[in-house]
Amino acid sequence: MDAAREAYRRARGLANVVVKGIDCHIGSQLTKTAPFRDAIARVAALARDVAAEGAPLELLDVGGGLGIPYQEDGEEPPSPMDYAAAVNEAVAPFDGLGLTLICEPGRVIVGNAGVMLTRVLYRKAGEIKNFTIVDAAFNDLLRPAFYGSFHGIKPVTKSSAETWVTDVVGPICETGDFLARDREMKKPAQGDLLALMSAGAYGFTMASNYNSRPRAAEVLVKGNEFAVVRRREELDDLVRGETIPDFLGPPRG
Amino acid sequence: MDAAREAYRRARGLANVVVKGIDCHIGSQLTKTAPFRDAIARVAALARDVAAEGAPLELLDVGGGLGIPYQEDGEEPPSPMDYAAAVNEAVAPFDGLGLTLICEPGRVIVGNAGVMLTRVLYRKAGEIKNFTIVDAAFNDLLRPAFYGSFHGIKPVTKSSAETWVTDVVGPICETGDFLARDREMKKPAQGDLLALMSAGAYGFTMASNYNSRPRAAEVLVKGNEFAVVRRREELDDLVRGETIPDFLGPPRG
Repeated sequence: MDAAREAYRRARGLANVVVKGIDCHIGSQLTKTAPFRDAIARVAALARDVAAEGAPLELLDVGGGLGIPYQEDGEEPPSPMDYAAAVNEAVAPFDGLGLTLICEPGRVIVGNAGVMLTRVLYRKAGEIKNFTIVDAAFNDLLRPAFYGSFHGIKPVTKSSAETWVTDVVGPICETGDFLARDREMKKPAQGDLLALMSAGAYGFTMASNYNSRPRAAEVLVKGNEFAVVRRREELDDLVRGETIPDFLGPPRG
Repeated sequence: MDAAREAYRRARGLANVVVKGIDCHIGSQLTKTAPFRDAIARVAALARDVAAEGAPLELLDVGGGLGIPYQEDGEEPPSPMDYAAAVNEAVAPFDGLGLTLICEPGRVIVGNAGVMLTRVLYRKAGEIKNFTIVDAAFNDLLRPAFYGSFHGIKPVTKSSAETWVTDVVGPICETGDFLARDREMKKPAQGDLLALMSAGAYGFTMASNYNSRPRAAEVLVKGNEFAVVRRREELDDLVRGETIPDFLGPPRG
């Protein structure tokens, strides 16, 4: 806080900088409102101190970070209404500052607006574990392998199959390629489509071409209408922008 | 092993399958030869059993997995010569089978043939930690954040600066965006170029467009010659293949 106060003082002395506001971001996928309330109250108090030095701010950006429910994992993050109440409570004592509030609730808007569809390639009952091998992999949805995140998995067509416990894994050549571990779910048949839930945030944007896998198509659904809004990548996309330098000589063969 | 024997029996009965060989892959970045020797001996024994049933195999693929030295981390994996000796020792008792050996030493070939260059944006001495903020991020080189991997970091221009201990982090909006933690290195100046060593394997192929970051250019160096062999991505690459469906109506504004 001391460093921030000093930075505002310094910025006010710079000819080509206009000081507009203050911003905070305390984390991601938070499931309590108390940390927001505490952080925002501290930042608002800083805005008050800055104003007291004669240079009132216009904007208070409270950042993002509100968690969303990842289906079936038992987490129940606050609703946007609860969150708004916490923000209001935190800023109420600073009402006279005339600050415009900005928030960045990206995941809340898009996280549960997207699912990732994947097809079951193969089912493998091992001696110790069961595996459901699907055609999506961690290059398509990195969160389970990277953050250990939980994504609900549902059959696209209602299933009356028995339940089993399985890892859901992709075709990439390493043991870290999984989408779910020890998941209790309906036993799918080869060819079944599964929906990985809550894939609308930090999904496609973190996808790579690992294992030379073209990235998936994206489909937008509105009511009963749908459209491919990003076509599936193909070979040309994998090698786009590549050139062979002359100094390597002519191609062999 | 029992399941594999059964699979070979079944494959021999299929009209459109030609059984050519046997393949194993026991892991990645291994730093001892004993696991290779053990695994290859077991697979070669399986090939002998399959041959004994009247259908000799032609190929034995011993897979990949030989580790490479990631500079300064103290690991000293076996040399390719040591590895070859271990493979030879494992297959020697099975010499009469006439198997052609195949190996897949990808990382050994390209891992230390590549570095990732990045520029220092800012140096931040915190109360608890020091940060060196660079213009590369975990979307460019995922291994440290994903696997906890160690990559050596060297100044491109020889430095006589003092040494400090710092996290080396990228500009992505999450605390997980780091390339090194608590690294003792020459204190760089803003604008300095740093080389992340051993970035030739599992580097670019795992890169994403996270945070709308275009992927880096790739430069090939041969002796004193160099060429850009993959141009840097730009905005057009980020939105390529995207379309706005008619049912959303005309653009606003």
